[in-house]
Amino acid sequence: MFPRKLTRQVICNPDYPVVQTKAGKLRGVVVEDAFIFRGIRYAEAKRFHMPEPVTPWDGIKDAIMFGPVSMEISTGIAHDAFNVPHFYFPQDEACQYLNVWTQSIDPNAKKPVMVWIHGGGFSSGSSVELYAYDGEELSAFGDVVVVSLNHRLNCIGFLDLSDYGEEYRYSGNVGMADVIAALRWIKENIAQFGGDPDNVTIMGQSGGGMKVASLLQMPSADGLFHKASIQSGISDAPAMTHKEAGAFADKIVAALGLTKETIKEIENIPYFHLARACLTAAGEGGRMPWAPVRDDDFFMGNGVADGFREETKNIPILIGSVLGEMTTNYNVELELTAKSTWSDEKVDGFMKEMYGDKADAVMAAYQKAYPKHPRANALFVDKALRRPTLVYAKARAAAGCAPVYTWLFNLECPAFGGTLPWHNAEEAYMFHNACYLEASYVPGVSEWLQDMMTGSWVRFAYTGCPDHPGIPYWTPTSPDSVPTMIFDREIELAVDHDKELMETLPDQNITKYFANSKRRQSKPLGGGPRQST
Amino acid sequence: MFPRKLTRQVICNPDYPVVQTKAGKLRGVVVEDAFIFRGIRYAEAKRFHMPEPVTPWDGIKDAIMFGPVSMEISTGIAHDAFNVPHFYFPQDEACQYLNVWTQSIDPNAKKPVMVWIHGGGFSSGSSVELYAYDGEELSAFGDVVVVSLNHRLNCIGFLDLSDYGEEYRYSGNVGMADVIAALRWIKENIAQFGGDPDNVTIMGQSGGGMKVASLLQMPSADGLFHKASIQSGISDAPAMTHKEAGAFADKIVAALGLTKETIKEIENIPYFHLARACLTAAGEGGRMPWAPVRDDDFFMGNGVADGFREETKNIPILIGSVLGEMTTNYNVELELTAKSTWSDEKVDGFMKEMYGDKADAVMAAYQKAYPKHPRANALFVDKALRRPTLVYAKARAAAGCAPVYTWLFNLECPAFGGTLPWHNAEEAYMFHNACYLEASYVPGVSEWLQDMMTGSWVRFAYTGCPDHPGIPYWTPTSPDSVPTMIFDREIELAVDHDKELMETLPDQNITKYFANSKRRQSKPLGGGPRQST
Repeated sequence: MFPRKLTRQVICNPDYPVVQTKAGKLRGVVVEDAFIFRGIRYAEAKRFHMPEPVTPWDGIKDAIMFGPVSMEISTGIAHDAFNVPHFYFPQDEACQYLNVWTQSIDPNAKKPVMVWIHGGGFSSGSSVELYAYDGEELSAFGDVVVVSLNHRLNCIGFLDLSDYGEEYRYSGNVGMADVIAALRWIKENIAQFGGDPDNVTIMGQSGGGMKVASLLQMPSADGLFHKASIQSGISDAPAMTHKEAGAFADKIVAALGLTKETIKEIENIPYFHLARACLTAAGEGGRMPWAPVRDDDFFMGNGVADGFREETKNIPILIGSVLGEMTTNYNVELELTAKSTWSDEKVDGFMKEMYGDKADAVMAAYQKAYPKHPRANALFVDKALRRPTLVYAKARAAAGCAPVYTWLFNLECPAFGGTLPWHNAEEAYMFHNACYLEASYVPGVSEWLQDMMTGSWVRFAYTGCPDHPGIPYWTPTSPDSVPTMIFDREIELAVDHDKELMETLPDQNITKYFANSKRRQSKPLGGGPRQST
Repeated sequence: MFPRKLTRQVICNPDYPVVQTKAGKLRGVVVEDAFIFRGIRYAEAKRFHMPEPVTPWDGIKDAIMFGPVSMEISTGIAHDAFNVPHFYFPQDEACQYLNVWTQSIDPNAKKPVMVWIHGGGFSSGSSVELYAYDGEELSAFGDVVVVSLNHRLNCIGFLDLSDYGEEYRYSGNVGMADVIAALRWIKENIAQFGGDPDNVTIMGQSGGGMKVASLLQMPSADGLFHKASIQSGISDAPAMTHKEAGAFADKIVAALGLTKETIKEIENIPYFHLARACLTAAGEGGRMPWAPVRDDDFFMGNGVADGFREETKNIPILIGSVLGEMTTNYNVELELTAKSTWSDEKVDGFMKEMYGDKADAVMAAYQKAYPKHPRANALFVDKALRRPTLVYAKARAAAGCAPVYTWLFNLECPAFGGTLPWHNAEEAYMFHNACYLEASYVPGVSEWLQDMMTGSWVRFAYTGCPDHPGIPYWTPTSPDSVPTMIFDREIELAVDHDKELMETLPDQNITKYFANSKRRQSKPLGGGPRQST
């Protein structure tokens, strides 16, 4: 719920707006011109089991407030909560809810449907977590139906108990099964909300991008979507194997004091205990390997490594990332702010410290890629997501798939004395919400740039091609060359502009480097609060 | 963080805006014209112990994002979350944070300070829980410094363990001690934020109103505030005694398996276990008696029952409630919507069913109080908060205190076919936020009414009298007569207009009546999600 200034009476009457879904009637609200339905239950599920269709009801149910979001193992204030404003929401295991923004509830309107799948890895987040992805502006600007959804995460979405019994066969994938159940709900019901069930674009960023890429590899999702947008969501990691996921599950089961004989109890213990067992299993500061589990029927593994499925080769892809991602300089604790005041000597000193002998080559490749950018930005350019994105785009082209359109979001924002675009930064622009967000908004730039970017995403949803008046002609990726649409204060199509940079740049990330630097650890960290529990 | 549409560059630079507090420097943001500092730590505390001043720091700390809010025993989606949009936030026991909105950071500006103390009884809520109480508009409209604060709640704020050792002497009051620590922080630091430490108005609604009324009875708060606004916050309940609070504490200690000898362990068990013990102690559906505990030095009990303290008799009071409060008809589960379509027969049938022989007298008294209102509204008028508010106002006048100004907020909003003002409804209007909230906004009415209401609250903060151009002259309450400023589509001062109604109306509340009615229990409840855990 996005409290923008209203100009007209919001309508929420006993009998309007009401929409008939397969399971029953829903009452929404009309805000300005948009019909909004929040918190629609799309599935029901027992813990660790596959989702089932919702129980039908009589009368009219309210869909005026968001539904609960997935339980999280811990919910703290994100370190990037200023740049990426969060909307936290009550959590519940029964979290299979979606939201709809639409300009029409005429069943014959058949508008493109744009489905947002949230990020947060496979462990956290929700359909409403970030203000940036409120759907009201996108729906109005593009005259499209926007859907966003919650689904099960972490140990209730991806705990692979398949070794403990046939009934848990899919427990390592039920989180993704929820997403597919939502897509099925959309197929069956979205026409009533003015949407075209035969023109559905799935979109996601970070973990959401991984989910989109995974859905292409999941047979039960076939036919439920027709276009896909993957945003900062491709990594080098291979698909999760049953071996790894099952080993982690074993540790959790052991931490709970359960066995194959008593495993049934795991369905009823309080979530808090399950979460504590996960923390125990992961160990101090350990990573929890939540992700869909590759098997022989539900999830066919990552496209690049395991092969793109024939059934989804016809899906056009919009793919990209942002210039800074995780390396950006808004982390005030790390004294990385005010980069624009750094002398060339200071910049080169850091380059040398981080990259040693390679420093000069990196700087040369950086300046070749971005001749107009300041020297200091070379310290912050992302490789971790950009490189695999390029690999993915080219591999799909090489496999003879439908067109792949590649982009980069490079707009620097003024906060903290100049900040490269951070992980999540493009969302405000492709959802047309940039003018609402304190760190994102650049007067005179945001208004125009979000028109272009939201416009491109909407064109992609309408036609499968993001070409849009006002931006250069968007050539798709080929097996050996990547034309990238660069969204910045100017928009240009650059062909293989950062190829050499990606080859030269070491894997080092300046943010991690500063965080780990002993030289800096002696100084007290300032900065915002952290959750201690 | 209230994502209103921005028109200017938000400023958050390495060196501006930065303010020097007693403990160290803080960096905030400039949004449009306002300086905003979010998540300022005002105190530190060990569990069950009194708050201490914050540890000083070197360098600049960020105050750009809200701080964590108090742990809650359970956090669900409120049944009124559409009418009263919520902003949930991560919880932590270390929750002593406040937020500042100001138009100036000149230490000589000396603007009135308006401090918001949130509601949610003494068990839930936060400084940022409701969008209605975001301080940006109030600060700009009134040119005042707005402060809102979090403090410890429920078992970490009000668990009276004083029988278990001298070190827990104040554990039943540490939640309020936090509030007083925040007021002390304001006294010591607010001049740096452009505020006048000698002109502080404390304000609160519901539980926040109770907290304001309690602060008048707490010697350690003397001198830290100068005016007080109590909104829907006076009840008939006597002050909590040690006998009651201690008995509940005994049950919790027992549920944890602790004794006087092992009590120290209660300081370190996970909050989740403490919360479970509270649920066990309260029993199925039982009430948890969280409230400040009357003792002989920290809290002197309720003013009406236990005597107004001489030291705070000089504090002028602004006091009021809203027409519907808890009885309003937005609860769609209870089929109380569309009241404007109800026939007189239907209305009278419900009146008869609820009030029996008294139905006619109630209707007559209602029509005398509100001759222009529709008949159906008689079913929804609040007594539970209005009657004790009148008692409090008159008792303070009788005790020779500074003036008490009484108000009622009666604006009906169009949602659900017409809804009487609900508990919290006036906040959007006295914070000048009514145009942002879906259920609150009435085009052509809200703009004007919020100017008048916010204006009155601001005048009260400036002068101790809420008189404001555009509204009638506001006569204070006398020992035997209550002039009430009624805020509606018109604003009028009505003297004892609902005296007879309050005397005639039974205690029955239609919402509870419908919820309990067997006749209705046979029907399935529709409506939104509830948290199951």
